[in-house]
Amino acid sequence: MKKIIGDPPDCDAPDTGKGRRGFLKQGAALVTGAASASLVQGANAQGLAGQPWERVYGAGFTGYGQPSRFEQPVMRHMRRAYGDLAPGSGSALAPIESLEGIITPSGLHNIRSHSGTPDIDPKEHQLLLHGLVQRPLKFSMEALWSYPMTTRTHFVECSGNSAAALAPQPAQVPAGAMHGNIACSEWTGVPLRMLLEEAGLLPQARWLLAEGADSAHMSRSIPVEKALDDALIALYQNGERLRPEQGYPVRLLLPGFEGNMNVKWLRRLKVTEEPTYTKDETSKYTDLQPDGRALQFTFEMGVKSVITRPSSTMKLPRTGFYEISGIAWSGAGRIRRVEVSTDGGATWAEAALTGEERPKALVRFRLPWEWTGREAVLQSRATDEKGRRQPVRKAWLAQYSPAMVYHNNSIVSWAVGADGSVKNVYV
Amino acid sequence: MKKIIGDPPDCDAPDTGKGRRGFLKQGAALVTGAASASLVQGANAQGLAGQPWERVYGAGFTGYGQPSRFEQPVMRHMRRAYGDLAPGSGSALAPIESLEGIITPSGLHNIRSHSGTPDIDPKEHQLLLHGLVQRPLKFSMEALWSYPMTTRTHFVECSGNSAAALAPQPAQVPAGAMHGNIACSEWTGVPLRMLLEEAGLLPQARWLLAEGADSAHMSRSIPVEKALDDALIALYQNGERLRPEQGYPVRLLLPGFEGNMNVKWLRRLKVTEEPTYTKDETSKYTDLQPDGRALQFTFEMGVKSVITRPSSTMKLPRTGFYEISGIAWSGAGRIRRVEVSTDGGATWAEAALTGEERPKALVRFRLPWEWTGREAVLQSRATDEKGRRQPVRKAWLAQYSPAMVYHNNSIVSWAVGADGSVKNVYV
Repeated sequence: MKKIIGDPPDCDAPDTGKGRRGFLKQGAALVTGAASASLVQGANAQGLAGQPWERVYGAGFTGYGQPSRFEQPVMRHMRRAYGDLAPGSGSALAPIESLEGIITPSGLHNIRSHSGTPDIDPKEHQLLLHGLVQRPLKFSMEALWSYPMTTRTHFVECSGNSAAALAPQPAQVPAGAMHGNIACSEWTGVPLRMLLEEAGLLPQARWLLAEGADSAHMSRSIPVEKALDDALIALYQNGERLRPEQGYPVRLLLPGFEGNMNVKWLRRLKVTEEPTYTKDETSKYTDLQPDGRALQFTFEMGVKSVITRPSSTMKLPRTGFYEISGIAWSGAGRIRRVEVSTDGGATWAEAALTGEERPKALVRFRLPWEWTGREAVLQSRATDEKGRRQPVRKAWLAQYSPAMVYHNNSIVSWAVGADGSVKNVYV
Repeated sequence: MKKIIGDPPDCDAPDTGKGRRGFLKQGAALVTGAASASLVQGANAQGLAGQPWERVYGAGFTGYGQPSRFEQPVMRHMRRAYGDLAPGSGSALAPIESLEGIITPSGLHNIRSHSGTPDIDPKEHQLLLHGLVQRPLKFSMEALWSYPMTTRTHFVECSGNSAAALAPQPAQVPAGAMHGNIACSEWTGVPLRMLLEEAGLLPQARWLLAEGADSAHMSRSIPVEKALDDALIALYQNGERLRPEQGYPVRLLLPGFEGNMNVKWLRRLKVTEEPTYTKDETSKYTDLQPDGRALQFTFEMGVKSVITRPSSTMKLPRTGFYEISGIAWSGAGRIRRVEVSTDGGATWAEAALTGEERPKALVRFRLPWEWTGREAVLQSRATDEKGRRQPVRKAWLAQYSPAMVYHNNSIVSWAVGADGSVKNVYV
């Protein structure tokens, strides 16, 4: 009696339908219907209970709105490195298991900070551009507003995202607590190239030191090629001024590069001939090799994906139709394809994508799936426009020392039990 | 010494440069530089004052972030129809003069409500689909989550937006207080078509009654063609669940149609043969003609644009380079072109666009401009893919009774005085 209608219309990302139909054939699952609507006897509004909120005048307008009180459990997952001793050091991860679409709400954007969130007065804050330039310049925030701006959608991922998935035993925590050190926003700001050309780079200019105004003076060395390519001096996030935890009033945005290089609360850019080898890029953010040596300056984040629904700690309430939904991204450019497996990688089907026209941004992938009640292992595997594809966990591990904690882009596996419970597993 | 670098890179919206260069020629304005950076003597960090926030440990992480305290003045403009008597009746407008990019932050999304914001428990809320269908259906929110979802970016504009710009004298208020009854979000939800096909439309089905769960039971009649085209049962806004003021836990989204038809807190869809002629579509939301008759069911919002920076009540602090920035949209589809004039419509130049690939969504337009210190009148004029173009104010007024307050999409004019002050004017 019930049937699944064809693919939904999607103007942002026209769906050829190829992937979905392919999956249904391959997976031997026949989607027979969205099983959870109730049939109503009779055909009038008596089928609806009158609710208390229909009988009282509602709340007044607010100058700045907030989520419903019923959504209060949806908050960032805290990974405070020193607990209450230093409540702004460590990470706060986006609850990707509760989110949909591509944009991450600014209130739930992931955070990685080294000495808390500074309370910066934008009237007092300045950005210095100096070093190997013809004309050292200093910009007030007012001055930056006079420059031409650009708007683009990009993800920011901490290079330590998914480090929790390297633990010896798979943690039974929500997807965001392991893989949520990523978020995606619409950023607006001034192309860094414009400021560098105004200052006039000297011939020996090869690197920039980017320094934050937090009390850690978090600092990284940036290749001048990246600064001249798609780097932004970002002032706006999702339409409004940056949030404090994302660098208010101004941050560096290096699309696709590891999160910590997108220096927040940016106070200084110094043009240099060599990398500065700051504390932040020598004491950490290096890739420990099997032979004990550390590889430095792995800037670009790898191609990656994770299924967010269903995911770890959830429970499927019944057999029948579900939509598998997740996010994919690549620091190298656009996502070309996301494949989904429900049998632990034995067979794969191509998912429908939304947002795949945007480079270095999250993409939403979706695939219909009928759960028959049998055990299943759900996986996703993204491929980017450079042809790079996510490795399986074992292949990723073989590249590094067991102590390596950065750039884990290996395939994530969720096991669905016969009781509908979804668990994090290593496959 | 200073010069403007070429057009900024913009991957979302490649800029041919044609518009900008054309404007510079036409406007006889030569962009000579972003005039407000300061030259620094010497080339070291001594050029920066050490600020107090660099010397103290910053704030700890928050589960759900908020804007900086320095941004508190950025809030919605209230137009409460009955003041404190009914604080949730009327409108709250987006402060478009303070925003950039395309996405409106959910906390600043425009609101139009008739009896306040209901406090709905999603576990208790249901959506009834009945009337001329084979199978009346009732959906819990849990049930809706099982359906395939679609993500798209769309504006929602109140049909009364810009009514304030019909006052006999031009109000000297910020742009958002006149033209901010619009916002743009990334919406995720279930295509309404899927639910209608599951219920099975009877042959005589032509209209839907959509009814909200607020105490006004706000109701509108929707053509079934629209419901089967791009209508969404929206559950998510900018990545998270809908905000209460935008219809939590579920709203109807009718891309491009007047805001009030996008029924919030949706509790009921009844399929009918004729329009229901509800109180909300007969007592208001009709177009008063010069002969005193009222034209009913003007659903689609017209092609429109407004310059947000600089705009009314702002002041240019100095002569020199500025970027003119604004938003454009059309209920009929994509924006094809936005032209900008700085001489009250005598000459026009084409602006660069961001986001113009998305139908029925805000587009950001930008154009460089050098203010020489002379009086200027800034205007923008949008054209959509159907070839429709914004009318001048007089032509728009001539179409209607003087009492008409809806669908004002006429060209907006900002006058720049010799002292740099920007004023709302009628041209």
